[in-house]
Amino acid sequence: MTDDVVTAAMLAIGDELLSGRTKDKNIGHLADILTAVGIDLEEVRIVPDEEDRIVEAVNALRVRYEYVFTSGGIGPTHDDITADAIAKAFGVPCEHDAAAMKLMADNYASRSIEFTESRQRMARMPRGSSHIDNPVSTAPGFHIGNVYVMAGVPSVFQAMVDNVIPTLRTGKKLLSRSVNCPYGEGAIAVPLREIQTAYPDTIIGSYPKYENGKFATELVIRARDEQRLAAAEAAVRQMVTDIALDDMR
Amino acid sequence: MTDDVVTAAMLAIGDELLSGRTKDKNIGHLADILTAVGIDLEEVRIVPDEEDRIVEAVNALRVRYEYVFTSGGIGPTHDDITADAIAKAFGVPCEHDAAAMKLMADNYASRSIEFTESRQRMARMPRGSSHIDNPVSTAPGFHIGNVYVMAGVPSVFQAMVDNVIPTLRTGKKLLSRSVNCPYGEGAIAVPLREIQTAYPDTIIGSYPKYENGKFATELVIRARDEQRLAAAEAAVRQMVTDIALDDMR
Repeated sequence: MTDDVVTAAMLAIGDELLSGRTKDKNIGHLADILTAVGIDLEEVRIVPDEEDRIVEAVNALRVRYEYVFTSGGIGPTHDDITADAIAKAFGVPCEHDAAAMKLMADNYASRSIEFTESRQRMARMPRGSSHIDNPVSTAPGFHIGNVYVMAGVPSVFQAMVDNVIPTLRTGKKLLSRSVNCPYGEGAIAVPLREIQTAYPDTIIGSYPKYENGKFATELVIRARDEQRLAAAEAAVRQMVTDIALDDMR
Repeated sequence: MTDDVVTAAMLAIGDELLSGRTKDKNIGHLADILTAVGIDLEEVRIVPDEEDRIVEAVNALRVRYEYVFTSGGIGPTHDDITADAIAKAFGVPCEHDAAAMKLMADNYASRSIEFTESRQRMARMPRGSSHIDNPVSTAPGFHIGNVYVMAGVPSVFQAMVDNVIPTLRTGKKLLSRSVNCPYGEGAIAVPLREIQTAYPDTIIGSYPKYENGKFATELVIRARDEQRLAAAEAAVRQMVTDIALDDMR
């Protein structure tokens, strides 16, 4: 791993993702943003609202990747156990954060809503955490060490991600080019493998599409170096042309 | 774990899921189906097209859950390495399966398409595997031990899942009821926690919705026993009524 590469994992927390009740939207969103800024998302896990499972996953991921991003489980109800689980993973107490308490107390006061004990639960975070601002609904996320803990509601998750991204170290972006190929994978596999072998510093992916009873392929070439990317892309486009010419003969 | 509970994990394989290029549709689909038939999906992982990462994840999951379902990486191109990785995970050779070769040879012959070495790659599977029929594009998935290996293209994945499900052991279904609650989580957290405590054999989830600048909540009660489910649901509905009456005072 060089300075050019910054790695990350995501941990999506919630029974509702595993039961099918909720179709996750946060994984794809985070993947898009991280790719855009030059951070490589290398693993995702989804676990239920169970403390031991969250602790285990966080500890497995945080030693392996430079950043870990979590979604879900930071609300005020009994099934929101992420803050406690993260504290346990780091071996620190989970406690009401004074600055978060002040922020939320002021916000509820301004709306004439009682700042109940339940709502105060949302100000709890592992000792030593820093806030992640929440412009949507005030209660902050937090980060401790390399773990960034955010809400599961997509609008809040996205706002928190927007606040986190500028604070992160980023690597050299993995650039990508896409080539639409009107042939199925079986027709291109041999020459495509040769191109991949000839351009080992690129990553060439082949994605079959099955549309109207016919297979086609989207070929995606990725590289951190613009020139190598362009060279590999040209080779892929030439391959498609060669197959077309062959077909016409 | 009793006979009533059957557990499963899913492993989605593919760089494209981690780069954001492809937004996964298979996780939510499998979650829905497993819930419907009485199998508990307890963990999901997404890993890149890297053999070591696939081997590691498959081996971690297959000892822990009764079933493991994978998606992606079983096509003919160089980046399709799932069959080799699963074989490595099980410590068996990955080889051309005679029955799959016959099936595919016949299919390509009927379409006057050459059954190239690349296409033959799709007939490779770990020794000792059984087929998972593929009505969409012929090349079968496979299962070995408790691991079910399926395509990533959603139409093919779904067709393979349909073929696998009737062969699986299923548990007692986790039934669920949903209660729409016009109050935010902060307003219901205390009584909801009391209900969860009073009905420990149910799982009560609270899912905030942020719509039109206002928080509301969907409360989901789950249980394997219909009567306990009904009792807990009644308690939750009573809670919502009580808060409404309080509001009117």
